[in-house]
Amino acid sequence: MIDATPMPGHPIAWAMVGGGQDSQIGPVHRSAAQRDHGLQLVAGAFDIDPVRGRQFGERLGLDAQRCYADYRAMFEAEARRPDGIRAVSIATPNNTHFEICRAALLAGLHVVCEKPLCFTTAEALQLLELSRASRRIVGVAYGYAGHQLMEQAREMVAQGELGEIRIVQMQFSHGFHSEAVEAASAAARWRMDPAHAGPSYVLGDLGTHPLYLSQLVLPGLEIERLMCSRQSFIGSRAPLEDNALALMQYRGGAMGYLWACAVNSGSMHGQRLRVIGSKASLEWWDEHPNQLRHEIQGRPAQVLDRGMDYLHPAARQEDRIGAGHAEGLFEAWANLYRRFALAMHATDRGDSLALGKIRYPDIQAGVEGVRWVENCVRSADAGGVWIDYR
Amino acid sequence: MIDATPMPGHPIAWAMVGGGQDSQIGPVHRSAAQRDHGLQLVAGAFDIDPVRGRQFGERLGLDAQRCYADYRAMFEAEARRPDGIRAVSIATPNNTHFEICRAALLAGLHVVCEKPLCFTTAEALQLLELSRASRRIVGVAYGYAGHQLMEQAREMVAQGELGEIRIVQMQFSHGFHSEAVEAASAAARWRMDPAHAGPSYVLGDLGTHPLYLSQLVLPGLEIERLMCSRQSFIGSRAPLEDNALALMQYRGGAMGYLWACAVNSGSMHGQRLRVIGSKASLEWWDEHPNQLRHEIQGRPAQVLDRGMDYLHPAARQEDRIGAGHAEGLFEAWANLYRRFALAMHATDRGDSLALGKIRYPDIQAGVEGVRWVENCVRSADAGGVWIDYR
Amino acid sequence: MIDATPMPGHPIAWAMVGGGQDSQIGPVHRSAAQRDHGLQLVAGAFDIDPVRGRQFGERLGLDAQRCYADYRAMFEAEARRPDGIRAVSIATPNNTHFEICRAALLAGLHVVCEKPLCFTTAEALQLLELSRASRRIVGVAYGYAGHQLMEQAREMVAQGELGEIRIVQMQFSHGFHSEAVEAASAAARWRMDPAHAGPSYVLGDLGTHPLYLSQLVLPGLEIERLMCSRQSFIGSRAPLEDNALALMQYRGGAMGYLWACAVNSGSMHGQRLRVIGSKASLEWWDEHPNQLRHEIQGRPAQVLDRGMDYLHPAARQEDRIGAGHAEGLFEAWANLYRRFALAMHATDRGDSLALGKIRYPDIQAGVEGVRWVENCVRSADAGGVWIDYR
Amino acid sequence: MIDATPMPGHPIAWAMVGGGQDSQIGPVHRSAAQRDHGLQLVAGAFDIDPVRGRQFGERLGLDAQRCYADYRAMFEAEARRPDGIRAVSIATPNNTHFEICRAALLAGLHVVCEKPLCFTTAEALQLLELSRASRRIVGVAYGYAGHQLMEQAREMVAQGELGEIRIVQMQFSHGFHSEAVEAASAAARWRMDPAHAGPSYVLGDLGTHPLYLSQLVLPGLEIERLMCSRQSFIGSRAPLEDNALALMQYRGGAMGYLWACAVNSGSMHGQRLRVIGSKASLEWWDEHPNQLRHEIQGRPAQVLDRGMDYLHPAARQEDRIGAGHAEGLFEAWANLYRRFALAMHATDRGDSLALGKIRYPDIQAGVEGVRWVENCVRSADAGGVWIDYR
Repeated sequence: MIDATPMPGHPIAWAMVGGGQDSQIGPVHRSAAQRDHGLQLVAGAFDIDPVRGRQFGERLGLDAQRCYADYRAMFEAEARRPDGIRAVSIATPNNTHFEICRAALLAGLHVVCEKPLCFTTAEALQLLELSRASRRIVGVAYGYAGHQLMEQAREMVAQGELGEIRIVQMQFSHGFHSEAVEAASAAARWRMDPAHAGPSYVLGDLGTHPLYLSQLVLPGLEIERLMCSRQSFIGSRAPLEDNALALMQYRGGAMGYLWACAVNSGSMHGQRLRVIGSKASLEWWDEHPNQLRHEIQGRPAQVLDRGMDYLHPAARQEDRIGAGHAEGLFEAWANLYRRFALAMHATDRGDSLALGKIRYPDIQAGVEGVRWVENCVRSADAGGVWIDYR
Repeated sequence: MIDATPMPGHPIAWAMVGGGQDSQIGPVHRSAAQRDHGLQLVAGAFDIDPVRGRQFGERLGLDAQRCYADYRAMFEAEARRPDGIRAVSIATPNNTHFEICRAALLAGLHVVCEKPLCFTTAEALQLLELSRASRRIVGVAYGYAGHQLMEQAREMVAQGELGEIRIVQMQFSHGFHSEAVEAASAAARWRMDPAHAGPSYVLGDLGTHPLYLSQLVLPGLEIERLMCSRQSFIGSRAPLEDNALALMQYRGGAMGYLWACAVNSGSMHGQRLRVIGSKASLEWWDEHPNQLRHEIQGRPAQVLDRGMDYLHPAARQEDRIGAGHAEGLFEAWANLYRRFALAMHATDRGDSLALGKIRYPDIQAGVEGVRWVENCVRSADAGGVWIDYR
Repeated sequence: MIDATPMPGHPIAWAMVGGGQDSQIGPVHRSAAQRDHGLQLVAGAFDIDPVRGRQFGERLGLDAQRCYADYRAMFEAEARRPDGIRAVSIATPNNTHFEICRAALLAGLHVVCEKPLCFTTAEALQLLELSRASRRIVGVAYGYAGHQLMEQAREMVAQGELGEIRIVQMQFSHGFHSEAVEAASAAARWRMDPAHAGPSYVLGDLGTHPLYLSQLVLPGLEIERLMCSRQSFIGSRAPLEDNALALMQYRGGAMGYLWACAVNSGSMHGQRLRVIGSKASLEWWDEHPNQLRHEIQGRPAQVLDRGMDYLHPAARQEDRIGAGHAEGLFEAWANLYRRFALAMHATDRGDSLALGKIRYPDIQAGVEGVRWVENCVRSADAGGVWIDYR
Repeated sequence: MIDATPMPGHPIAWAMVGGGQDSQIGPVHRSAAQRDHGLQLVAGAFDIDPVRGRQFGERLGLDAQRCYADYRAMFEAEARRPDGIRAVSIATPNNTHFEICRAALLAGLHVVCEKPLCFTTAEALQLLELSRASRRIVGVAYGYAGHQLMEQAREMVAQGELGEIRIVQMQFSHGFHSEAVEAASAAARWRMDPAHAGPSYVLGDLGTHPLYLSQLVLPGLEIERLMCSRQSFIGSRAPLEDNALALMQYRGGAMGYLWACAVNSGSMHGQRLRVIGSKASLEWWDEHPNQLRHEIQGRPAQVLDRGMDYLHPAARQEDRIGAGHAEGLFEAWANLYRRFALAMHATDRGDSLALGKIRYPDIQAGVEGVRWVENCVRSADAGGVWIDYR
């Protein structure tokens, strides 16, 4: 049970790039990072408008001198301080992730980055190399991965409770963009603009979430071939898609289906992971994260609840309150940030044994997300053909 | 409200081919056909074993003379009787449907046939021609189509309540064949044998059910291109598949996804239709057929219940009991057979106006199911490529 | 698996009193009684208006001579026929049940009676005596009891899977009479008129359904004390209640709660049985009758599905179609009528061994329903006080 | 949208009594109180063991001098500091709440107290008087009341969307104490010991939660008469109950039913509020707090989701993340503590207008919870009789 008493070696001095005024995701990062006192916000370059950014930082109680005009100034100034930041989170539009992440690693900082890391696999691999060379971690904000029942699913798969894995269904399909809301919403608009969003909308913005869940739960799966079909039901969104379906053939013959959609009218999130094995299936929906359905062929379907003694220890160690009480997305994020903070500390003290035990969406996960979108776009743009995954 | 008082001009003298001892589907046909006294069983060729077939017929209370050794004998003998049969249902293995259906039409009989009508579109079109020439109806046993909320869905689509249709999701994915149960079950075995089952297993046996529901609810959709990926997770089932996913591009740009699966471990039927429009979506599951989910973007999700006054009249006319009471699959079948019987009578009396108002899975629906399987197999066998639908 | 081939010794010649034109329940009785050819309708006194009743019977295909003006005439005339009826179902307003049932038994007929049997326990015990003396069965139309998962529940309780029984929750609470619909609906009106409905509305009309389910599933429970609180939220319904809650203390200390309500706005049936033991609970809702929830303390909750091999044989013997297919209320009724028919035949041939194995809502169940309403009304009318059950 | 930027006039210096090592509820208080920087923990008397308490406080990062041996020492010492605490939360066993709360108010502190405030209405009224006299607020930890959809429910009731209120169903019925777990669990043991827990177990510990929700949503209801039946299914728990049902008759004729239970085997929380009006009903379950069911009689049932634009502004102002994302109990608690902090500040600056707009479970709510338990026990101990509520 996490009881919010401090973790040894923490908090780590931390800053944000982006996530200022009117950002939805900024408060989530700050709440999660500081929930268990793993990180502590001491600096920031919150806004493209320096004045607004500084005012925002001051409202958060930061020293005005540590509210910077941009990330370059911040990394440089903080490096000169004895109490300077050791970690930074990047919550800016997609097109800036690569350069900020790269600069942060070059500045010797640990990084937590919003997905996607960047727009091309080549760039992602550069960051991977840089992360290794600089001995700094990069955590990726796949927040749903912090839900504890994903650990339960991973353990059940690992222990063979599902048998041989045959089919993986992934879905993130909401309806909030069924109409051209981007005309009135800046937050929606940049996501549909290739210059800011990159080569895809729903594949990257939505699809990589359940994709990462599948990678977390099924670490052995490797995509061999893939085909993707994408559409822009609101025509002005082209070339970016608001609906896409990807089929994956994994090495060994299992199949994966991923549906990402922003025009699924009337649906809330619609994020789901279903793993089908030769003996049993697991199913989980992010809107009801405290329940995991376990369906053994020939036996009554079961519903597992977070916090219960029958769960694997790995699915219990981040409990914050007893079973029956609803934990939500903020707890999942806090779990992730807790692991990021633990991984930073283990890295800093060179404790590779400890580091190896901390599971979190890391730079490799970030690379894989970028690679997957790239392959999907390559297939879709070739007319929805099967391609060898690379 | 259907009150089981007789329909004018009915019952129609009726026979079965197949559906004898140990058949699961035989009793369903008989129960449905006679529920509203639309048809009355007076003859049969129930079994490939003539003695067993005659004994079975006698147990049903039939005149022993009208329990025939085979369908040919039956059609011939009944044609000579003044009270001979006017309709026949075919509930035999798939590979016999074509010849029996053809013979029945040639004998001037109305037909109710288990799906698939036959194995090729060319054959199906022959039956279509024959049906027209002989002025006899062919009804196809897409039993789920008799659930009244499908009429509600059709009406809502027709009246524009969903807006422009964008995505259609179809699914029939159970887990009962996750293991090679066909080793011990004859009923499973023939379904996986191309000689008896035809060119597919789950595409035809499962997939055509929700496919027909989509055609019923969305009469305007026309498939333009299609791709299909199929697998045999139990290797001995090859070349027939136990899992398949088909993507359809409809004329005008809407997309369809259909997942058929018999290895979805732990799932019961898993039959679903979801229709997504620009304003709202509809979702229906055959295991809870009295509820239809209506999700309007930006408004609270709604659950419609069978039997309620807010439904369209078309979804009320086959009520058999008040709202709240659970109707089930037997009622859906009975509704279909009722319509079959009404269509037979309208045809016989040349009442094309009445006939036009009776909606049922007809010979055209049968053709379309065969055509769809044929296209799916063609795509899958070419490596899962997009093909022009034909 | 029930396959609708005839049962030896059946069908039994059968008539109805009531259930004619515009009756909702009449068609349900006829459909259920004849589904498995256990009974066959050959006569009737369908209507208080003799002409309308005869016309109705003729529409059902009956011999006009066997469409009688009233039950007395029918019992007398049929007794003189060699092929006369041996059984009768009573589907008339409540206030006539006693006299018709009594007359039927005196005429040597088996009876299926709508609940309540009568208005007082004293009357009910008269019928019980008469039933024994005449060696005729009386079945009571607690239709939901025919759902097979109730047999599963009974077996699980009997085998101790729930541990010691502590709490029983019963509920039948719909919202269809939230407004004074009786002003416009004759079907609703008589249920709220003491002269026709007896001493209660929702207690008798709704509450006795889940009460009987509890008696079926928990045969060992015996009510020791009871208190009941009832209200008429639509004032014009007084003295009859449209809402009631009864608390029961069973011998041994278990507690029962039964909520009957017709003003539960927006609820469909809302019929539920939940049985709580020291180890586990069971929960079942009549609107989704193919699922039974089994909650073992400290383990994942389970959902059992009708038709599955893991069920007890007693819960499988009336399967009509494989698991996954939705059976509904009509199947439950047909199962009951099948048992009624089997019990009639076993009684007639004096086969008490066979009779003992047939479980159905019998005259004793009918007595207990009347007794329970009587006790509830006695408590409620005394101000909602605890009374000794008698 | 709450964005976790500081609130003017906050944080308020705050301490805890209790909630130390191994406390489940302690971390919840601290997380909630500091989430929005409304309060800041600066002192504590965390444990009955002073050394353990001080060590715990130091681990939380507190100044060792402000980790006190007991609440008396703390109130006295802090009062002498210029930066002393202005608020305190009480998370100790029930039997100490009264004296600590009283002492805190006498020390001029604002208080947040775990329920129950105390064991008798007389004591509770003393605290109420003291709170008024000292011009300090007392917030009560009815954490579920912070879920935003409760505000939605209140607004819908207030605007007449349900019509006249007829029936209120409240339930908190888990299964975690189906066995005598108190033998091994200290946390369970004191709850069943009258010396520490007071006159009831489940009525006070569980039942007052949904009771307060009903008071929040239905401010106009006033209990006129009440009857309560309680049992100890684990005999050693007597005289405290592990199961209870209370019936309430409200002034004007509406009825309330509240079921509190700790032996509901296999159930998780089982906390529910259902409000039934003459036109519509609302239903909410705390385990899925982002959904509120709205059932209008004669129309399709609706499911409202947290965060959506169709909700009333009062149900939107504490959004922390967009619709679709699962908020949980921690957000509900944080919302409450935010309101506590705002109410403290408004009180301190004498802004009664602002104070009047802040809705939170206040001293009056605390009084009403104690009063309700007292009445329930009085009725139950008299044999489950109706009593006039006082």
